[in-house]
Amino acid sequence: MKLYHETIHAIKPLNTQAMEEAQKRLDYLLKPQGSLGKLESIAKQLSGITGNIHNHIEKKAIVIGCSDNGVYEEGIASFPQSVSTLIAGTMVTGLSGVAVLANHAGAILKVIDVGLVTDVENDAIINRKIRRGTHNIRKTAAMTKDEAIRAIEIGIEETNVLIGSGYNLIGTGEVGIGNTTTSSAILYALTGCDIDSVVGRGAGLTDEAFANKKKVVMDAVQINKPDRNDPIDVLSKLGGFDIACMTGVYLACAAKKIPVVIDGFISGVAAVLAHKIHSDTVGYMISSHGTEEPGGKIINTLLGLEPMLYMNMRLGEGTGAALAFSIIEAATAMMNNMGTFGDIGL
Amino acid sequence: MKLYHETIHAIKPLNTQAMEEAQKRLDYLLKPQGSLGKLESIAKQLSGITGNIHNHIEKKAIVIGCSDNGVYEEGIASFPQSVSTLIAGTMVTGLSGVAVLANHAGAILKVIDVGLVTDVENDAIINRKIRRGTHNIRKTAAMTKDEAIRAIEIGIEETNVLIGSGYNLIGTGEVGIGNTTTSSAILYALTGCDIDSVVGRGAGLTDEAFANKKKVVMDAVQINKPDRNDPIDVLSKLGGFDIACMTGVYLACAAKKIPVVIDGFISGVAAVLAHKIHSDTVGYMISSHGTEEPGGKIINTLLGLEPMLYMNMRLGEGTGAALAFSIIEAATAMMNNMGTFGDIGL
Repeated sequence: MKLYHETIHAIKPLNTQAMEEAQKRLDYLLKPQGSLGKLESIAKQLSGITGNIHNHIEKKAIVIGCSDNGVYEEGIASFPQSVSTLIAGTMVTGLSGVAVLANHAGAILKVIDVGLVTDVENDAIINRKIRRGTHNIRKTAAMTKDEAIRAIEIGIEETNVLIGSGYNLIGTGEVGIGNTTTSSAILYALTGCDIDSVVGRGAGLTDEAFANKKKVVMDAVQINKPDRNDPIDVLSKLGGFDIACMTGVYLACAAKKIPVVIDGFISGVAAVLAHKIHSDTVGYMISSHGTEEPGGKIINTLLGLEPMLYMNMRLGEGTGAALAFSIIEAATAMMNNMGTFGDIGL
Repeated sequence: MKLYHETIHAIKPLNTQAMEEAQKRLDYLLKPQGSLGKLESIAKQLSGITGNIHNHIEKKAIVIGCSDNGVYEEGIASFPQSVSTLIAGTMVTGLSGVAVLANHAGAILKVIDVGLVTDVENDAIINRKIRRGTHNIRKTAAMTKDEAIRAIEIGIEETNVLIGSGYNLIGTGEVGIGNTTTSSAILYALTGCDIDSVVGRGAGLTDEAFANKKKVVMDAVQINKPDRNDPIDVLSKLGGFDIACMTGVYLACAAKKIPVVIDGFISGVAAVLAHKIHSDTVGYMISSHGTEEPGGKIINTLLGLEPMLYMNMRLGEGTGAALAFSIIEAATAMMNNMGTFGDIGL
């Protein structure tokens, strides 16, 4: 609990003076003002985050929270629960989607078992297992509040280790069969909006299973009665350990002034929770790609962020965050290397 | 004229058998089918282009056609005409937006003077000047049909040299004050659609100048009466040498079976012309980013392509194409390096 409160206490707004100076330089670069769009916004945001006009991405990592969800027993997923552990394994052996894309982007993965049902037989996966999966949210709270804080703190601790080792661009990712259901439930509880705008087909459900998933989400919220003004209450009653862990990643990055990249829907729900815990957290977030999940639009609206990439991707894992890394680096290249009107005597 | 016809004659449809085999592998990779969206489409397209399931991007280049436009004298641009040559100069000195982003992507630039008004004093810019700018399209045809073919052939020749040197991913870019006006005029002539859906504010026009630009485009089409079924007629009457040169780049890439990346609006209009010249050309094209110009949507519809990036960029030069290179390479990494269900015994 101490680390959680210390971290939140350390979160401060962006450095507006540095952002103003960054804007001046952006407007002096050899181009019509604003014509490099989101590349310019990112460069300016990085200045607000670090306080420096010129920024350099030194080391990149994606932190991946892996856990299982008790709500699986309601038949809301397309794959058996053992697949969570299988996928986590393929991340550290380099075979999964995010492993390949992170490697392409020059980033490492930090794969954390926060609550997989099946035990992992691979030392490369960090064992921080709280419990073998959460409880079924259609019947009871997913976890206790203490467990939720503990999962958040695991995200904070592991992220702090990365930052301490010089990683200065961090993405979030997850593995957990059933975690689009928990994410939808959290978003439904937080917003109270129409069920169809927060529940999607996940990795690919049939019509029948899709209808059931909506029912499960509505039931879970009705049974648990989370207080929408208390993000820890919502998270502990409806969430997964993976989501809690990613929430911790966002909080740690904001506290340590490091840019953090949102992946897709599940990662976005964790971002919304971090934002509810401390509103300044959002200043440190960069949205990567537009997810196929309907709730993605609500997340963007809640955070006031707009993705860069629209790839029709719905794999999760952190794959979108990995793709965005090179664009973020391009923004720093623009800021550091483009000529100015002064350079050509104008 | 010979090279033009030889090139068109060499353009063939994509290799559908290779695409089917690519699809089989994509469906066997460790992910729900189709869940990597456009990354999968790109990998499949590359297989159709090269005939190989596994592809490797060896060397990347952006071919940039630079020229001026006689229609400048109608007051349709925000910058003086001398800026075209200035920008071309900053490309080869590494200061321009596309120079920085191409360098970030590990790509070279091939900057070609096809018709700049001001002479360039830099040996790194390839001098293929046809004439010092086109004629004013509000008064007469921009160029003769022979000149249009010659500009296309310059694009073909310079692209063939790159391909002969092992470049196997090519993007298009341009410089030319006034070239959103010529591009809008071509699109307006080809489609006959509403003027507001093809004319935008370019690099940043006032309301008055914007209204004038629409009038100029409508007048240019009315005066020149281009035959919309003859792309060379449309191009020669309304185009710029830059657009013609990029049209040649697309044709050369299609003929030599090399993927070619569309940048923004102007580059997209050249892609539409190449498509009209030979419909199979589009199979070799990859759309990079959604342009802010209204005509961008029409281009996507005409070509049946969808951009990957939405960056609110409107600089042109080839900046969007440069950003897309790393995503295309990510698609090859996915295809070559991701594990299969077989790898984990499923």
